[in-house]
Amino acid sequence: MIRAAVVSYGNIGRAAVEAIGASPDFELAGVVSRSAECGMRGNFRFVRSIDELSGVQAAILCGPSVHIPEIAEEILKKGISTVDCFDIHGEVFGLFERLDAAAKKGGCACVTAVGFDPGLDSAVRALFEAAAPGGLTYTDFGPGMSMGHTVAVKAVSGVSDALSVTIPAGAGVHRRMVYVVIEDGADFDEIAKKIKNDPYFVKDETVVARVPAIEPLKDMGHGARITRKGVSGTTHNQRLCFEMSINNPALTAQMMISAARAVLKRPPGAYTILHLPVIDMLPGPQEELIRRLV
Amino acid sequence: MIRAAVVSYGNIGRAAVEAIGASPDFELAGVVSRSAECGMRGNFRFVRSIDELSGVQAAILCGPSVHIPEIAEEILKKGISTVDCFDIHGEVFGLFERLDAAAKKGGCACVTAVGFDPGLDSAVRALFEAAAPGGLTYTDFGPGMSMGHTVAVKAVSGVSDALSVTIPAGAGVHRRMVYVVIEDGADFDEIAKKIKNDPYFVKDETVVARVPAIEPLKDMGHGARITRKGVSGTTHNQRLCFEMSINNPALTAQMMISAARAVLKRPPGAYTILHLPVIDMLPGPQEELIRRLV
Repeated sequence: MIRAAVVSYGNIGRAAVEAIGASPDFELAGVVSRSAECGMRGNFRFVRSIDELSGVQAAILCGPSVHIPEIAEEILKKGISTVDCFDIHGEVFGLFERLDAAAKKGGCACVTAVGFDPGLDSAVRALFEAAAPGGLTYTDFGPGMSMGHTVAVKAVSGVSDALSVTIPAGAGVHRRMVYVVIEDGADFDEIAKKIKNDPYFVKDETVVARVPAIEPLKDMGHGARITRKGVSGTTHNQRLCFEMSINNPALTAQMMISAARAVLKRPPGAYTILHLPVIDMLPGPQEELIRRLV
Repeated sequence: MIRAAVVSYGNIGRAAVEAIGASPDFELAGVVSRSAECGMRGNFRFVRSIDELSGVQAAILCGPSVHIPEIAEEILKKGISTVDCFDIHGEVFGLFERLDAAAKKGGCACVTAVGFDPGLDSAVRALFEAAAPGGLTYTDFGPGMSMGHTVAVKAVSGVSDALSVTIPAGAGVHRRMVYVVIEDGADFDEIAKKIKNDPYFVKDETVVARVPAIEPLKDMGHGARITRKGVSGTTHNQRLCFEMSINNPALTAQMMISAARAVLKRPPGAYTILHLPVIDMLPGPQEELIRRLV
């Protein structure tokens, strides 16, 4: 059994607890949370620090991306392997290098940026290039909530609550549907203009709508479509397409649990999903997996 | 540069020569063929035996599945790594075990069953299970030619030429469209009945049509659709779909070249595509691949 701790208990953390419970080869050591009340809840334990849990082999880091580098480094140095869902694309390589040093120092392994995208999508993009090295890949997201864009809207003065939904417009272009609750006396037109000029939105078609409340609009469903039209050898027009419609926190958490299985089999250091043999991400004997899946 | 030999020069062998030519990090040592005329042709060399070629690191085995076990074993024992497109699903694990012993004896590595399906499809099926471990996966093939079914029809007495095309009917069910040229005086109804009762066809809806010639009907295009509706953690209705429409020999050959890149980085032994980290299948520095694909 792989003994894993869940670190941070938001939507993804809750889904990680469920995914551990549903995995035949995992057991939950406990949940590390700075805000939840400590002690037993149901059949698992909440603690303030991972040091309070015994025999943890893998820490599943479910907190927001901004906190992941520091938390991962700290846990890796204790000799506990980590899996995280860091999702700031431009910063993945820097984090990978930083965590590689920490993991080697701790004598353990980590896999970074494992979720929906980066994560499953990254593996599909790489596989598509292996099949057709020439050509173009487009990743279209949605429809679904974008956390980064939502946070950017909430920061606009006069906005009391917000939700930004990503709508795929094809070939990697997206429309943003922004729903806002505005403060009494605030100027909606002024707010809409500010949002459209925000760096997060300025390059995309953006529609801003005023709503009385955000909570009733929330839905964790999300989607992605990856298409590649490319060249295998010298043969053009090879067409590959991947599409998913999923509950985002559940997919992210499951990918992290599957990746944890694989990373515990690797030598010390940092990995991305591209480095993990997919057979190591699945439970069960190799013979059965080869017979069933190859 | 990876120095590779192409073994067997049919449709897949030709595509493998093209894929090697199109790869920045490969060079063609030559083509091993029992039937082609020996000597230089264009800018590459045809030989009878791989022993006539120098410095070969990887042999790309493009011959029919029935000959692969023997050829692969023989080449592995010489210390040359192999990649093959063996495609008899039920026999992959047995071959994997047999080649594992041969590769370890030769101090080299091999990857077996790398093509369209088994191959790219296998990797997708495994990745889908990592994302949603509960549920069902269906693989639908076509429309495209089936070599195995075509050979079975050609063996029916009274048939002088044939082509079997696979039509996807959904959820892993297929219809077979069989085109036959019959010998003078042969009874078409009798032949059609025999084909429909053949073990290759008896379980599928099969339509047999008489045509004057097969050659004009041939088209190397093929397709596949893999769908999984499954459970991530405890969350149901996670939907994943992969679809491709491709030239089959070109895709198969390209997958073998990409896999050759990866297998040369592994310790001696046998591998399947499920064992290969996808990052090792792609050319170029790790940093660039992580920045672009993760």
